Amino acid sequence: MANLTISSTMRALELTAYDGGGPESLHVVEKPVPRPGKGEVLVRIAASPINPSDLSFLRGMYNVKKDLPVVPGLEASGTVVATGDDLASRFIMGRRVACAAGDGDGTWAEYIVTPVTQCIPLRKHVSDEQGATMLVNPLSAWALIGIARRGGHKALVQTAAAGALGRMMIRLGRRFNIETINIVRRDEQVALLKSSGATHVLNSNDPHFDSDLQTLCRELSATLACDAVAGDMTGRVLRALPRNGRVIVYGALSLEASQLDAGQFIFKNNSVGGFWLPMWLKEKNILSVLIAAYQVQSLLASDLKTEVRARLSLDDAVAGLAQYTERMTDGKILFIPSKSAH
Amino acid sequence: MANLTISSTMRALELTAYDGGGPESLHVVEKPVPRPGKGEVLVRIAASPINPSDLSFLRGMYNVKKDLPVVPGLEASGTVVATGDDLASRFIMGRRVACAAGDGDGTWAEYIVTPVTQCIPLRKHVSDEQGATMLVNPLSAWALIGIARRGGHKALVQTAAAGALGRMMIRLGRRFNIETINIVRRDEQVALLKSSGATHVLNSNDPHFDSDLQTLCRELSATLACDAVAGDMTGRVLRALPRNGRVIVYGALSLEASQLDAGQFIFKNNSVGGFWLPMWLKEKNILSVLIAAYQVQSLLASDLKTEVRARLSLDDAVAGLAQYTERMTDGKILFIPSKSAH
Repeated sequence: MANLTISSTMRALELTAYDGGGPESLHVVEKPVPRPGKGEVLVRIAASPINPSDLSFLRGMYNVKKDLPVVPGLEASGTVVATGDDLASRFIMGRRVACAAGDGDGTWAEYIVTPVTQCIPLRKHVSDEQGATMLVNPLSAWALIGIARRGGHKALVQTAAAGALGRMMIRLGRRFNIETINIVRRDEQVALLKSSGATHVLNSNDPHFDSDLQTLCRELSATLACDAVAGDMTGRVLRALPRNGRVIVYGALSLEASQLDAGQFIFKNNSVGGFWLPMWLKEKNILSVLIAAYQVQSLLASDLKTEVRARLSLDDAVAGLAQYTERMTDGKILFIPSKSAH
Repeated sequence: MANLTISSTMRALELTAYDGGGPESLHVVEKPVPRPGKGEVLVRIAASPINPSDLSFLRGMYNVKKDLPVVPGLEASGTVVATGDDLASRFIMGRRVACAAGDGDGTWAEYIVTPVTQCIPLRKHVSDEQGATMLVNPLSAWALIGIARRGGHKALVQTAAAGALGRMMIRLGRRFNIETINIVRRDEQVALLKSSGATHVLNSNDPHFDSDLQTLCRELSATLACDAVAGDMTGRVLRALPRNGRVIVYGALSLEASQLDAGQFIFKNNSVGGFWLPMWLKEKNILSVLIAAYQVQSLLASDLKTEVRARLSLDDAVAGLAQYTERMTDGKILFIPSKSAH
């Protein structure tokens, strides 16, 4: 194992119950710095955000439940300070990277061990802050717009359009001439998106929402939708799509199962599938991933910029989570593990 | 319009409310025999079955609701006795056909007008009875097994496996070396299917059903399922499928919306789509349809045989529907429009 100066213990947030991460279940602990095995790297973390998928994770609703206690946190930026013994790992030694958590402890800590395949080298001009939020939102937005581009779609419906990823999709859509039909839940989000240049914005609480959405989908021939909400929203979008429509579910902000009329499948040949970045990364070959990551980094200061509203120490996690949950669309909250309690 | 001897009026069942077809809403009426327009044919009906999709239709839950009053009935056999003026129609004049209803009145009558594209010529050895039930079940079973074959699937999950279509799928599966994992709702259906040669039969009311299904899917690498039930069954099947699984919904016997965990789409890359025979027929070129229909007719006396339990006059419709609804898996009930009330 190659070495930079690494302490033997580290500070980390630890979750002891899948209850959403309140003061009883989420604490800062001191624990040994983990050691990377074969194909793994040790990353000293610079910054790590709170994402909607972290909220799902804290409730035990994200993919497989990891054994407790566990360090939460799904993505971060940092520097590779130690590696296992294989070639790929050695190639990345000392590099600044964006990284995603593997099967073990996550990124809300001073260090993480993760497979080298979950790390993407950062270009010089990309800051630690922008790098920290590069995977879950910018790369996902890039991948989803890529699905629309490869399918030759001229229009795309999306739910949760006022969120960070949603706003990136709007800007990427404009770049690639794909009209976005944007669904939000509040009138001020309609105003916000329109003022930032979105053409089609619908409030799902509007009484005419369903028929307006159907009309827009028909007019713009939109047969593809990206849904981050699930619950009854998946079914409402599916109903609005014309024949041969497809909804890609990539999040479940409602924390509810998707409700889908069988008739939409049978008579309209509509379909529903999913998208999950770690799987997308795994199924792509390494070269395509690196090319996508390179292109995404070119846009991190423009189309794929993440707004940051707060930088917190690990000690402020519980308050930070409450603040984020209350208003998710006001910008990202980052944990800076090197920062001490204020 | 070419002519055989055609009466000017006919007897037909007429639905006056989408309430399921009780004594108040379903009556025999005398009405003018319709005249075929361009691209249409007039078929004198020999026999027409009650299918599960008819029950959905009678409740207003089948595709588009037709204007009331309307003649129900989705498929039949009969003879083309008049045609519109185009070539395709003339080619089929005088032929015995299996036919599906078009956008107007259906098949529970002495005559129907339907597009020529919804008619398939019957081979000499096929009886009116077997021809009457050829489209909804045998051709659908053929099409669904075809999807599994083209996808290289070695195993296939199916719900409502004790129904007519389900039993055809089991036999076709055996013919084409596709293992079927068959889901039923009652122990006597388990016994029935096992005694007729099915290897894997699960009762969804069994307490171990979900884990047994998951184990079987893994062991047999089953990633494709055909679901005729919808409601919570679609989601239970989707959960049991391994990664990259696909459920094709082709019916909604539960009359409920499909409930689907967003996590199945997101983390497992599972998907749900649909199948509807009229669309399948429309999307295939005419030659593929004729080849499929020819092959299906070769098997109507064996793998694709339909059991008939009763032959009723139109006057006995209400009682026949009640009898069918009570026990759908006991064989088809046919209406014979030429038969008078007993």
